[in-house]
Amino acid sequence: MKFQIENTDPNSKARTGKIQTDHGEILTPIFMPVGTAGTVKAVHQKELKEEIKAQIILGNTYHLYLRPGLDILEKAGGLHKFNGWDKPILTDSGGYQVYSLAGTGRKIKEDGVTFKSHIDGSTHFFSPEGVMDIQRVIGGDIIMAFDECTPFPCEYGYARESMEMTHRWLKRCCDRFDATESKYGYSQTLFPIVQGSVYKDLRVKSAEVIASFEREGNAIGGLSVGEPAEQMYEMADLVTDILPKDKPRYLMGVGTPANILEGIALGIDMFDCVMPTRNARNGTLFTTEGVMNIRNEKWKADFSPIDAGLGGNNSTFYTKAYLRHLMKADELLGSMIASVHNLTFYLWLVGEAREHIKNGTFRAWKDIMVVKLMQKM
Amino acid sequence: MKFQIENTDPNSKARTGKIQTDHGEILTPIFMPVGTAGTVKAVHQKELKEEIKAQIILGNTYHLYLRPGLDILEKAGGLHKFNGWDKPILTDSGGYQVYSLAGTGRKIKEDGVTFKSHIDGSTHFFSPEGVMDIQRVIGGDIIMAFDECTPFPCEYGYARESMEMTHRWLKRCCDRFDATESKYGYSQTLFPIVQGSVYKDLRVKSAEVIASFEREGNAIGGLSVGEPAEQMYEMADLVTDILPKDKPRYLMGVGTPANILEGIALGIDMFDCVMPTRNARNGTLFTTEGVMNIRNEKWKADFSPIDAGLGGNNSTFYTKAYLRHLMKADELLGSMIASVHNLTFYLWLVGEAREHIKNGTFRAWKDIMVVKLMQKM
Repeated sequence: MKFQIENTDPNSKARTGKIQTDHGEILTPIFMPVGTAGTVKAVHQKELKEEIKAQIILGNTYHLYLRPGLDILEKAGGLHKFNGWDKPILTDSGGYQVYSLAGTGRKIKEDGVTFKSHIDGSTHFFSPEGVMDIQRVIGGDIIMAFDECTPFPCEYGYARESMEMTHRWLKRCCDRFDATESKYGYSQTLFPIVQGSVYKDLRVKSAEVIASFEREGNAIGGLSVGEPAEQMYEMADLVTDILPKDKPRYLMGVGTPANILEGIALGIDMFDCVMPTRNARNGTLFTTEGVMNIRNEKWKADFSPIDAGLGGNNSTFYTKAYLRHLMKADELLGSMIASVHNLTFYLWLVGEAREHIKNGTFRAWKDIMVVKLMQKM
Repeated sequence: MKFQIENTDPNSKARTGKIQTDHGEILTPIFMPVGTAGTVKAVHQKELKEEIKAQIILGNTYHLYLRPGLDILEKAGGLHKFNGWDKPILTDSGGYQVYSLAGTGRKIKEDGVTFKSHIDGSTHFFSPEGVMDIQRVIGGDIIMAFDECTPFPCEYGYARESMEMTHRWLKRCCDRFDATESKYGYSQTLFPIVQGSVYKDLRVKSAEVIASFEREGNAIGGLSVGEPAEQMYEMADLVTDILPKDKPRYLMGVGTPANILEGIALGIDMFDCVMPTRNARNGTLFTTEGVMNIRNEKWKADFSPIDAGLGGNNSTFYTKAYLRHLMKADELLGSMIASVHNLTFYLWLVGEAREHIKNGTFRAWKDIMVVKLMQKM
């Protein structure tokens, strides 16, 4: 993987850049649609490429490990071959899913994590080394270190100990990753993850430790887990001052359109979130005019396009009234249209951000957009 | 509407033809995907056109009347404008849905049918005149007479009386239809429906009465409701000997791929059925190699295309193993891929039938295909 910064914004820490992988390039800042089980929910691969213009998608190690399972993925030749997505893929490490499984008998120890499958209740064990091996089999271009994602709120003592364990786990991840090779002939790279909850000294410490590993890119985890947005921005701001400028920075699991624009201003290059697809299935649309609950009565006879401000076919072809009807009738096409729309919007948003950074107009544009995009239509 | 026969098969009653409507032409024999509530379930309009190559789709009067409702459809300018499908649409009359509502307090009388909405339990009344008015608002290119669809089995006495009422209703439908005009500037045409259950004398009588109305096309209803296939073919055979040769014949609600090929051999020109989409959502795929339950263990590591024998992207791009995974994980993309596949197969099948009729090879090809297509893979 190679990363090159192309433009920097004079009025914020925002920058544009280019990540080169063996599956093609990624222009940053970028939003990465989440394809939990090897599919971005309700979206065809062709739509991801041609309509949404996604440049990289996510896969979830926890889900893919359980189903279809590593034997199938390895026989297929990795996730790209399995699902037909030939552009870059990033896989998470399962750390976040393990965090989500709290209260189901999950046990976190120094050696690793024992947890139960949400599918059949069977018991499994993830260690830092094991998770590297699993991600070698899945075959993401960018893979993530195994970390503990602390909840919010989190006591200082727990946050510190957890962070320290995450750092020890990182050493184990790097050792295993560096001692093994890609299975499918293209290169993979490992991103470590900054933790430390909402404690400034822990975040500073973690960022310093993570930076010292000198990997090709770095991630910030443990945010967007329920803390106020201002606290998330404060932590990201601290951390991006420490993480090396010449490497991509990935803010995991973030977020709303406003979160993403603020994150870009703080020097973040990569984002992912289930929000555009999950909210789509509930009828919440993010548009160039604000946020819309398409199930609302007010759209029932509105025959204007879903979002005339976006390119592509999906959001300009279908009308608000038709999409509302589909949602009210629980038709699958409703989820399909809304999912493609929201992702098209997210990719449009980061594309616009890139243009404004290039033109030196990012800061002023961002401040207007953050207000506009949160307005209820 | 205009209909022109282009080729006839020397060894069966099969023929190819062309139906001209104000929304474009339909090459027959044709299969019409069912778009119950203004959407062919899990399929984008663009896919219907570009991938599946559908030439005409169905809308259901009962469903569209309840939701989105006539006010919305009229404000939109009809169903074509509402859902963005600019090719021909056929709407049923609600007769079949009323039949399906048996046991829910539905009352069939000479004047019309009182029934309860499956959505909110509200009471509604459909009369032959009312159903014509409703279909004027929906705006299908081909609309159907209001009939009673008898169940199977059905006593002779009931079948005869019901058939006679359907004939009286047809008179009322024609009177209302002929006294009203299309609302949106393009022409609509009304097809009457032959009934008579599985009784030969009733089917002959009904076909004679229906033919005497001299409408532009004719339909055969009340079949594919549980009777043995042989009985369905026997009735269709009787009826197509009586219905005028120079007008399109539509066998309603049929059927399996084999049913369709046998129907074509009996001189049927148009078919519709929910089977390809409904079975797709359950994991049953119709392919050029036979019938496949994609959820079966045997496909878990089969990385060959879903159906290499079909053109288009969907069925050759995605693999059996990937589709099986999506189905097992209850991912929406599974239903989407399978639905597009099955409809692509159905449209391929009638296209192949057309070619073989043109080449005079239909009968021999049909006999081989009927066996092949029913084989379990």
